[in-house]
Amino acid sequence: MSPALPDNIRLNKKLAGGMAYKRKRKGGVSVISLITDFGQNDNFVGVIKGVILSINPNAKIVDICHEVKPHDILTGAFLLKSSFKYFPKGSLHLVVVDPGVGSERKNLLVKTKDYFFIAPDNGVLSPALKGQVSLKIIEITNKNYFLKPTSDTFHGRDIFAPTVAYLSKGEDFSKFGKRIKSIKELRLPQVKITSKDLIGEIIYIDRFGNLVSNIDKEMLDNFIKDKKFRIYIKDKTIEKLSHSYSEGTYLKPLALIDSFNYLEIALNWGSACNYLKAKKGAEVMLAVT
Amino acid sequence: MSPALPDNIRLNKKLAGGMAYKRKRKGGVSVISLITDFGQNDNFVGVIKGVILSINPNAKIVDICHEVKPHDILTGAFLLKSSFKYFPKGSLHLVVVDPGVGSERKNLLVKTKDYFFIAPDNGVLSPALKGQVSLKIIEITNKNYFLKPTSDTFHGRDIFAPTVAYLSKGEDFSKFGKRIKSIKELRLPQVKITSKDLIGEIIYIDRFGNLVSNIDKEMLDNFIKDKKFRIYIKDKTIEKLSHSYSEGTYLKPLALIDSFNYLEIALNWGSACNYLKAKKGAEVMLAVT
Amino acid sequence: MSPALPDNIRLNKKLAGGMAYKRKRKGGVSVISLITDFGQNDNFVGVIKGVILSINPNAKIVDICHEVKPHDILTGAFLLKSSFKYFPKGSLHLVVVDPGVGSERKNLLVKTKDYFFIAPDNGVLSPALKGQVSLKIIEITNKNYFLKPTSDTFHGRDIFAPTVAYLSKGEDFSKFGKRIKSIKELRLPQVKITSKDLIGEIIYIDRFGNLVSNIDKEMLDNFIKDKKFRIYIKDKTIEKLSHSYSEGTYLKPLALIDSFNYLEIALNWGSACNYLKAKKGAEVMLAVT
Repeated sequence: MSPALPDNIRLNKKLAGGMAYKRKRKGGVSVISLITDFGQNDNFVGVIKGVILSINPNAKIVDICHEVKPHDILTGAFLLKSSFKYFPKGSLHLVVVDPGVGSERKNLLVKTKDYFFIAPDNGVLSPALKGQVSLKIIEITNKNYFLKPTSDTFHGRDIFAPTVAYLSKGEDFSKFGKRIKSIKELRLPQVKITSKDLIGEIIYIDRFGNLVSNIDKEMLDNFIKDKKFRIYIKDKTIEKLSHSYSEGTYLKPLALIDSFNYLEIALNWGSACNYLKAKKGAEVMLAVT
Repeated sequence: MSPALPDNIRLNKKLAGGMAYKRKRKGGVSVISLITDFGQNDNFVGVIKGVILSINPNAKIVDICHEVKPHDILTGAFLLKSSFKYFPKGSLHLVVVDPGVGSERKNLLVKTKDYFFIAPDNGVLSPALKGQVSLKIIEITNKNYFLKPTSDTFHGRDIFAPTVAYLSKGEDFSKFGKRIKSIKELRLPQVKITSKDLIGEIIYIDRFGNLVSNIDKEMLDNFIKDKKFRIYIKDKTIEKLSHSYSEGTYLKPLALIDSFNYLEIALNWGSACNYLKAKKGAEVMLAVT
Repeated sequence: MSPALPDNIRLNKKLAGGMAYKRKRKGGVSVISLITDFGQNDNFVGVIKGVILSINPNAKIVDICHEVKPHDILTGAFLLKSSFKYFPKGSLHLVVVDPGVGSERKNLLVKTKDYFFIAPDNGVLSPALKGQVSLKIIEITNKNYFLKPTSDTFHGRDIFAPTVAYLSKGEDFSKFGKRIKSIKELRLPQVKITSKDLIGEIIYIDRFGNLVSNIDKEMLDNFIKDKKFRIYIKDKTIEKLSHSYSEGTYLKPLALIDSFNYLEIALNWGSACNYLKAKKGAEVMLAVT
């Protein structure tokens, strides 16, 4: 039985049935990761997986996160940037946070030294791609790879899913569209750096209530060197960097460099978010003493 | 190591160990999709997957949705109908929305030209099966395939999971029980059609707050032809059909045929559900002008 | 392409690339189950899966539950105990409910006759392991298998994920650390048994609002024999054990032995939890009449 969807949802038969499994991978496995704002209450993610497996039955699909708040491109970008390096080389990262679906925004396919990225051109890829070498960018335009009919409301299913699936089977990168030079950049909250302090803000809050700032380890190391410093958030002062949550004491927030290399405010056995009543955008200041 | 569960949870050893992998599929892969009302806070879905993989280690299990509201057969049916065609031919669709578990309701196994469906006989399959040809229906009765002991409270684990797993390995369809002629039909909200208007209702609301009605594209095309029309929902009037969400303007609801072919009321960059304070069952009227 | 993460996240190359796929399993499949308190709003679970697949591309990863309340070791333990037997022999069960991450608590690897278990030494494994034979316990200390750099805040990614992945590829159990004799025991709520009554409590509430008590079938059978009894919870009295939810009538709670062998209070087509306003810890009494 050739990989195929029923006749009313058409794949390109020649492509789907006739294409050899060209990409060589250990065990013939291609990992496709998914980040979306589709949630898990509907069938959107499941349908995307069905389409992918119709084209490449050997794909290994891994959910990174589907609970990005609807249209929250910044969070999608943050999750991608923090995650993609933990996947096997050759993985294909599909991000569908796509408030502009059906508008003139482009659909992107990007190849780096180690990975493929597929997403709408709304900035969601830009933090992950920053500093990557051997970047090749394609605007996805080759309709041969699209599901037919192709909706203007669900490109995840009709364009991105078949594109990533054919690509994962070894189809040549350049066939999916035309080379372009640049992608949309996401405007990220910037850290203000003076000689006396670093002023950042909370950009992500995880399920434990840990408050992740936009101050990263490199920035912090460059700033501190061997100076003494304090960290200020809301009305609290933190005197030092801890190494693990377990160093914290009851109802005393701590600061540490978290596992993704950001300065994070946390509360051992509790939620710093609830305790400090801090929201995204809350200021975090690190000042020399 | 033969596929096996520990000794206190017994599979039929002869079946599990001795059965050849008969079903031929590209890559030896069988896709099993899952729709349940089990949620993701408990271990129900994980245990079902454990049982399936104990019998068929090569099964590819895809979650369509587990967040169907407890006992909400109508939503389970809607999600199945909207999803099943996007899976590879030969896929097995398991639906466990089963308020009657342990009662006299039957357990069904249905074969169509392209798919298998497994579910309790409570109507959840009927919208998906409507109009399908070469329908063969079996009441699952062959206890050889059940997990032992077989509970009356979790047929998903003890009956449906092993049945779908053995079937996915190529076990003959007719062995699972006795042929029956018909299944329970789900009573669906009907669209009222007059010469002047179509009166439908909202039957599904997705995570974006898009309001999906029971008026489908075919119905709408047949009704409109080249007439002019307006769409009414709550106290709002919509003058035309859009093609994508991005055609909408700020705080102005739009109507479109969605990616699953239903008339949908949406709000670009927002939630039509919240904005219109519309619930399931809310009336949607399309009238000629 | 050898399984590998990018250069800044280092696996032990010799181990990752050079190790033969030693463990023989039907279809070459290793099932790894996951129970965590990571939720699904962040990228923690996805990143763990990425790391596992980087090392063993053939691993089959099954989510049992990620919605354990943060730091709720008791629920993690209950879910593991109720689930692990439904997985194929040889499966590897990874549990990351780890409030003490980065503290002095040990990381455990346990081998039983049929399974492997990997978890922090905080008691989360003890109910599942109770009564298991041929128990071998290792404290995970071999840093060769860790991701480098190894954080003190995310052992799930940096220690547990690579350990379970290498183990699933057939790496010898004894190589991961040093043998130890015992693990931390979880203090579980005990059932009080007198000649007249059994007094237990609600230890788990599922998504349907079913109230699961710590009174199990064996305890109950031993106590009841052929005596008559009543069950008391909150202000309600239940006169008998039912076999299925469908035996219940409108707004009348029922009691049954559930599919995991615990005495459970339920409400047919409704939530016993909401109806009885019962929480975890609520007393359930079974008394002879």
